[in-house]
Amino acid sequence: MPYQKIIDDLYLKYKDFKIKGKVASYIPELKKVDANKFGINLYNLQDESFGAGNFQEKFSIQSISKVFALTLALKEIGEKIWKRIGVEPSGDPFNSLVQLEFEKGIPRNPFINAGALVICDLLISKLKEPKVKLLNFVRKLADNEDIHFNKKVVSSEKKYGFTNAAHVNLMKSFGNIKNDIDSVLDLYYHMCSIEMTCKELSKSFLFFTNDGILPWSKEKIVSLSVSKRINATMQLCGHYDEAGQFAFKVGLPGKSGVGGGIVAVHPDLYCICTWSPVLNKKGNSYLGLKVLEEFTSLTQASIF
Amino acid sequence: MPYQKIIDDLYLKYKDFKIKGKVASYIPELKKVDANKFGINLYNLQDESFGAGNFQEKFSIQSISKVFALTLALKEIGEKIWKRIGVEPSGDPFNSLVQLEFEKGIPRNPFINAGALVICDLLISKLKEPKVKLLNFVRKLADNEDIHFNKKVVSSEKKYGFTNAAHVNLMKSFGNIKNDIDSVLDLYYHMCSIEMTCKELSKSFLFFTNDGILPWSKEKIVSLSVSKRINATMQLCGHYDEAGQFAFKVGLPGKSGVGGGIVAVHPDLYCICTWSPVLNKKGNSYLGLKVLEEFTSLTQASIF
Amino acid sequence: MPYQKIIDDLYLKYKDFKIKGKVASYIPELKKVDANKFGINLYNLQDESFGAGNFQEKFSIQSISKVFALTLALKEIGEKIWKRIGVEPSGDPFNSLVQLEFEKGIPRNPFINAGALVICDLLISKLKEPKVKLLNFVRKLADNEDIHFNKKVVSSEKKYGFTNAAHVNLMKSFGNIKNDIDSVLDLYYHMCSIEMTCKELSKSFLFFTNDGILPWSKEKIVSLSVSKRINATMQLCGHYDEAGQFAFKVGLPGKSGVGGGIVAVHPDLYCICTWSPVLNKKGNSYLGLKVLEEFTSLTQASIF
Amino acid sequence: MPYQKIIDDLYLKYKDFKIKGKVASYIPELKKVDANKFGINLYNLQDESFGAGNFQEKFSIQSISKVFALTLALKEIGEKIWKRIGVEPSGDPFNSLVQLEFEKGIPRNPFINAGALVICDLLISKLKEPKVKLLNFVRKLADNEDIHFNKKVVSSEKKYGFTNAAHVNLMKSFGNIKNDIDSVLDLYYHMCSIEMTCKELSKSFLFFTNDGILPWSKEKIVSLSVSKRINATMQLCGHYDEAGQFAFKVGLPGKSGVGGGIVAVHPDLYCICTWSPVLNKKGNSYLGLKVLEEFTSLTQASIF
Repeated sequence: MPYQKIIDDLYLKYKDFKIKGKVASYIPELKKVDANKFGINLYNLQDESFGAGNFQEKFSIQSISKVFALTLALKEIGEKIWKRIGVEPSGDPFNSLVQLEFEKGIPRNPFINAGALVICDLLISKLKEPKVKLLNFVRKLADNEDIHFNKKVVSSEKKYGFTNAAHVNLMKSFGNIKNDIDSVLDLYYHMCSIEMTCKELSKSFLFFTNDGILPWSKEKIVSLSVSKRINATMQLCGHYDEAGQFAFKVGLPGKSGVGGGIVAVHPDLYCICTWSPVLNKKGNSYLGLKVLEEFTSLTQASIF
Repeated sequence: MPYQKIIDDLYLKYKDFKIKGKVASYIPELKKVDANKFGINLYNLQDESFGAGNFQEKFSIQSISKVFALTLALKEIGEKIWKRIGVEPSGDPFNSLVQLEFEKGIPRNPFINAGALVICDLLISKLKEPKVKLLNFVRKLADNEDIHFNKKVVSSEKKYGFTNAAHVNLMKSFGNIKNDIDSVLDLYYHMCSIEMTCKELSKSFLFFTNDGILPWSKEKIVSLSVSKRINATMQLCGHYDEAGQFAFKVGLPGKSGVGGGIVAVHPDLYCICTWSPVLNKKGNSYLGLKVLEEFTSLTQASIF
Repeated sequence: MPYQKIIDDLYLKYKDFKIKGKVASYIPELKKVDANKFGINLYNLQDESFGAGNFQEKFSIQSISKVFALTLALKEIGEKIWKRIGVEPSGDPFNSLVQLEFEKGIPRNPFINAGALVICDLLISKLKEPKVKLLNFVRKLADNEDIHFNKKVVSSEKKYGFTNAAHVNLMKSFGNIKNDIDSVLDLYYHMCSIEMTCKELSKSFLFFTNDGILPWSKEKIVSLSVSKRINATMQLCGHYDEAGQFAFKVGLPGKSGVGGGIVAVHPDLYCICTWSPVLNKKGNSYLGLKVLEEFTSLTQASIF
Repeated sequence: MPYQKIIDDLYLKYKDFKIKGKVASYIPELKKVDANKFGINLYNLQDESFGAGNFQEKFSIQSISKVFALTLALKEIGEKIWKRIGVEPSGDPFNSLVQLEFEKGIPRNPFINAGALVICDLLISKLKEPKVKLLNFVRKLADNEDIHFNKKVVSSEKKYGFTNAAHVNLMKSFGNIKNDIDSVLDLYYHMCSIEMTCKELSKSFLFFTNDGILPWSKEKIVSLSVSKRINATMQLCGHYDEAGQFAFKVGLPGKSGVGGGIVAVHPDLYCICTWSPVLNKKGNSYLGLKVLEEFTSLTQASIF
């Protein structure tokens, strides 16, 4: 069955689905989003794109941006970043301080908030204009200049971001943050505020299915080995305390954000992105999980 | 490069390697094992076997047996087992009670001790002679009658198994163990005491690379979907608190045991098993991890 | 105001009080107790006794017995018991395993279940017939032969005592239990099953107000220093996770039990005991706390 | 034996004692203090003062100031402060975030850092010039105008206080901090930077031995009941994770600080203060604990 048909069918099946859960509400900017938005897009290595619903509408990618930041850090700094950050799944909820304190300020992985804050700290130490560099990096991966920070989201996050401030202060107390706390939080909130569409996101993750190489320009972003390792990290740590469920049901490496987006990667084949803002209790898009599970069942396309 | 050559090269490279770590010592039977034992074996779907070193010598498979028990439980009882057990990675060390108490007696996954104890409890409720049934199931998977429990290991485990007794009592206090505590522990210790060779183990996991079907007899052990889900569970939970490292470096679903064995599965291709009894701090075979990492690098064969 | 008047007034004020909470229900024997039972008794150093309500009715003293066991252990074995047990308050609920695991099997204090189990283990190692010895010790302290174990409570506790079994197994795994697990649990459950009246209990704790000496016979049970230290331990650890509230509101050393009894000691003056089986969320007698708070307010008799 | 003689004897016995432990080193200002400083002072209700060693030398009172802040909050705001703060001992080390997160931003008691930060927040909401008010309050209690903040300590604390910043941010994320984070930390650090002598401290705590009334002016600072409750809180929570040891060995309500001071109160009799900057592993003055234990043994003066 062709991708477009499957995606259209899934869109029609679920577009009026009664969803259990809530839109993210910790900042006003996210709370305002229309709960009924629903988009799907798939990009394959043949540069074909298949979309349905609101797949061309921008949304706040939030934690999905952590994959871009990790990739940039590995590209610019290399494997030594793993001295300051782990690669193990985190059993605790994504905003927990317990584990971080127990493990002396070393975050378990780069996709929990604490881990992404360390990545920001690393980027600030290494790059001259880290915000500009990060945004340009995402634009190159998406082959698209029309990608921006949302300044309202940035200021909202700053106003309510006491948990993140607690994390970064705790890590600083353990010596695992080198730069000024405010500049680390500033880069972090800018990163999370990036807005993209399903179509742009699925294109921008395509190099992970292509051994680290941009399919259209053949530019090598990261090595084969690094690309596979980022995929492995997404598989194990990409969905807060629901990584097991995601591997079990969807069976692909992926990353979700509280804006309601999920990106999943099938090595050597395609990248698929869904957007539906209503979240389950674990903070992942309710409909996104459902659609991706059904998609990989229909296409028998899990990596396992 | 042919598998036999790669395996021979890795064996020669590492057979005299100075290893950091210790043989498992919590029971005398495991402590007695020669630290220098080292075997590798790969079975592919063409029924070819490639071995090196002590690949035909029996060792205590310990926690690797948990994969057999989970598979038998899914085959006999079905998906409803997931009401009593999770599929999420466990951040804590494999013998921790903290998480189990916090999560009201529901173990995080079937590969931590508590989870395997629940699986044993489920098998006892369902099967008439669970020990016999389990052993026969393993024999069928390995196509080999010469597989046995080690009674000395069973009694040693019983004598020193106070942590497991604590787990099972705690879960019973939460109502998540239905049978008599002694019979649950008895099945659990028998299961862990199974002895197999690298060659036998790599053959017995081959159906996981073949969508749940025994390659030689075409017998369907579990469905495609269940087979993929067990692979996903191994990927996320198969190596205690080192699952992330294993995914990151080896990139294949797998399961380790404190006897020093590790089995790894490449869907659609092969199953490989290593044995070296010296463990790292996380309780996984030091040399096994090294060899498997290098094997998947050389063959560029990670699933990611 | 004379004690009898205060006690009568408090009894009348509270005997028909609508209580929030529940009778202990983890074993049928405790669940059966009439929730309306309510007794108060005070013994002073002049050997005068002042009672009201059901103060001459036997009830299950449960954890109050831990004070007797600790005293006997200090008398028979001495200060070296503190190598295997702490004197710090426990922040966690009384049935928590978390702290015990974190602190390598050393219980925080002798009044949490794990601590009392270690005391039982110490008594078994030291005494020939520990159950007989313990019961006779309590009889001497109460100057009364009519004090007994309740065998039904013992078997009920054994049938449902999986949490205690988890504790003792965990401590055994850390080497902090020397004897057979079943014999430790047997002594523990016998100890908890002792039945006494408010009058008997207030008499049996009187030596703690008298520097360790039985007022009627002048027999020295423990030294002045040991007596004061047990009082201090009751003050800091006598009420599970409500020790602070008890010190804050009542201001006397004391010990509660899930049978609904509370004993409180005023050094150099008196011992008072209340009984009302309905417990608050923290496992302490709701009415007992209220009455004792009001009693020490009226008599301005806190030790602080 | 008269107090002066006991104090002189203890001073001579311990002044050249080889101490195990270290001076607080988390800020340079504390690290610089001479480890050999050693002072003792006792004030009784007859307005007599008995000192030895460096009892007239100022030192950083640090956490001892939390008792002043709590008293001022109870005086100015009343019992409703207990809605935002508990009175239970904290099992965890004094800088732990675990419990605070678990208990939704409500600190266990007013003497852990998080609790004192909430007290500061309450004072800021209530008082116009909280720093001035607090300092004047301490001066009145000590009957002495020559008491000051140490501005160098304040800026040192701010420079290195990432753990406290983590605490206050975490509580703000739970809604338990109402004011600006910087102003809360500013008051907190000023409070901790107060410098006093043993003589001044022992005088300033004297009203706790006198039912809340300043002995020299008969001014009522707090009610009898509040005075007793603060004593109870000091007894249960005054020494981080060593409150049990302090009750057990010293047997008096008290409060310690990382500057090496300890104040202890004997209701109706006296207040005693020791200073020796070398701390044990739990963060309490090594020599102070020893001297106070011996003092209450010699005078048989525990409250238990």
